Amino acid sequence: MGASLGRPGTVAIVGVGLIGGSVGLALRERGLAGEVIGIGRDRAKLDDAARLGAIDTGCTDLTLGVARADVVVVCTPVTRIAQDVRQAAAAGPEHVLVTDAGSTKRRIVEDVERDERAARAFVAAHPIAGSERQGAAHGRADLFEGRACVVTPTARTPGDRLDRAAAFWSSLGCRVVMMDPKAHDEALALTSHVPHAVAAAMAATVPPEALGLAAGAYRDVTRVAAADAALWAAIFRANRDPVLAALAEFEAQLAAFRLALADDDEHALIRWWEAARERRGRFGDPPGRTGAP
Amino acid sequence: MGASLGRPGTVAIVGVGLIGGSVGLALRERGLAGEVIGIGRDRAKLDDAARLGAIDTGCTDLTLGVARADVVVVCTPVTRIAQDVRQAAAAGPEHVLVTDAGSTKRRIVEDVERDERAARAFVAAHPIAGSERQGAAHGRADLFEGRACVVTPTARTPGDRLDRAAAFWSSLGCRVVMMDPKAHDEALALTSHVPHAVAAAMAATVPPEALGLAAGAYRDVTRVAAADAALWAAIFRANRDPVLAALAEFEAQLAAFRLALADDDEHALIRWWEAARERRGRFGDPPGRTGAP
Repeated sequence: MGASLGRPGTVAIVGVGLIGGSVGLALRERGLAGEVIGIGRDRAKLDDAARLGAIDTGCTDLTLGVARADVVVVCTPVTRIAQDVRQAAAAGPEHVLVTDAGSTKRRIVEDVERDERAARAFVAAHPIAGSERQGAAHGRADLFEGRACVVTPTARTPGDRLDRAAAFWSSLGCRVVMMDPKAHDEALALTSHVPHAVAAAMAATVPPEALGLAAGAYRDVTRVAAADAALWAAIFRANRDPVLAALAEFEAQLAAFRLALADDDEHALIRWWEAARERRGRFGDPPGRTGAP
Repeated sequence: MGASLGRPGTVAIVGVGLIGGSVGLALRERGLAGEVIGIGRDRAKLDDAARLGAIDTGCTDLTLGVARADVVVVCTPVTRIAQDVRQAAAAGPEHVLVTDAGSTKRRIVEDVERDERAARAFVAAHPIAGSERQGAAHGRADLFEGRACVVTPTARTPGDRLDRAAAFWSSLGCRVVMMDPKAHDEALALTSHVPHAVAAAMAATVPPEALGLAAGAYRDVTRVAAADAALWAAIFRANRDPVLAALAEFEAQLAAFRLALADDDEHALIRWWEAARERRGRFGDPPGRTGAP
């Protein structure tokens, strides 16, 4: 029953921060799980998550916490995900589905698939929702509504686990998109990781004494620079080559602007801006009220 | 009486777009002007502005429209401001105060001050408020509330005009800041012009097929790329050297990131991000709900 498609019985969430907390809130608000167990090293954070209604019970031992889980959702930082997935796959029931919410995928998938049992239990995922804020207190039951969730199966991913993972993320409100892990990482380098680096570079460029003259453009361009340093250093490192390639694309766009301006070339500047404006116009603002990445 | 400090009698607004329209709405809502005359080349836009309550009457002839103005506010694109200011100073009453709302200042001031009468009537200003949207229909009576307005007098600016200009912009809700025109341009290159260029470069970097995976970071970093191309090409050109200098600062920040990532240097990445995050933290979000620059 717990293992039946789309109706997780017991769900264990490893890491009850903003994403893990929101997974729990969504599961409980939608009545999707019989029980939600939060797993983390910090007892106080687990108690907070329970008080906020994000989990039913907390457990500081991953092995114990996943013992009767039908689904395990690993929401720890990208540097920890692979080891938490392997441990959950080893300690969970035979039918356990392990999925994750990491911002990068290729290295995690490769790392997990070195372990035979973990490879059979794991379906990598990335729900594209979040915030520059941290902690379950900033979680929201509707965080995933209408958001894309990229699911990145490989040739080794069992079909039943893939179906269950897609049903799980759909049940939280996500629009599930299937992609190769490498294609995911290359796309996210462009759509999220380089925008974060650009936001931080712009934030650092304006000296404190000029901040009194900054307004909406600075505010919005730099918003995500308020995110956590260690978290983002880990994401950049986990996706280094795609980020460096996407950064080169961005730098080329900026160099085209610089040359047009240095040449005082009005038509080139207008053409350059129009191409950017047209691209931005295709985007349209996504559903949901806040959020990086 | 119209010339008395802080109580403009008849105000003429040259250019009734987003900024000019908001000046009119603020003047009328606050009961600050006896009459608000809108001046523009497009009769339909003047009629719209009148219907929206931004102006009392419209006039397509600048010389006629300023004839009995106590204050003229020039809200045309930066490429047109100096000539509109000179024309308004020549056609307005002897006591007329002419001010503007242009995003750049040094070249405009130099250009205006080649004309003796215009130099005596003009106080350059830049209310730091706006939007990526255009037109009086997007104007708001509270657009200037709590926003900085940089006023950039020179040695030739008469004291009475400077006092009246400061009182005028204060009466709309602005916090008036006095600066040298060159210092203004250098600061705004950093706080507004380069952020706009960065937003457009980022928008253009993401290929259309990846936009479905873009979310909050892309949305916010690129928001101002929806602004008008000709308007921004003109601002960049009018402030070319400061923009190129600020762009070099930004590119150096980004190069530091690129090197740290290429070296896989976790500590350098964290230090780099923390410095940016600390700077962003000093900013705090400004009053007002929307708006570039």
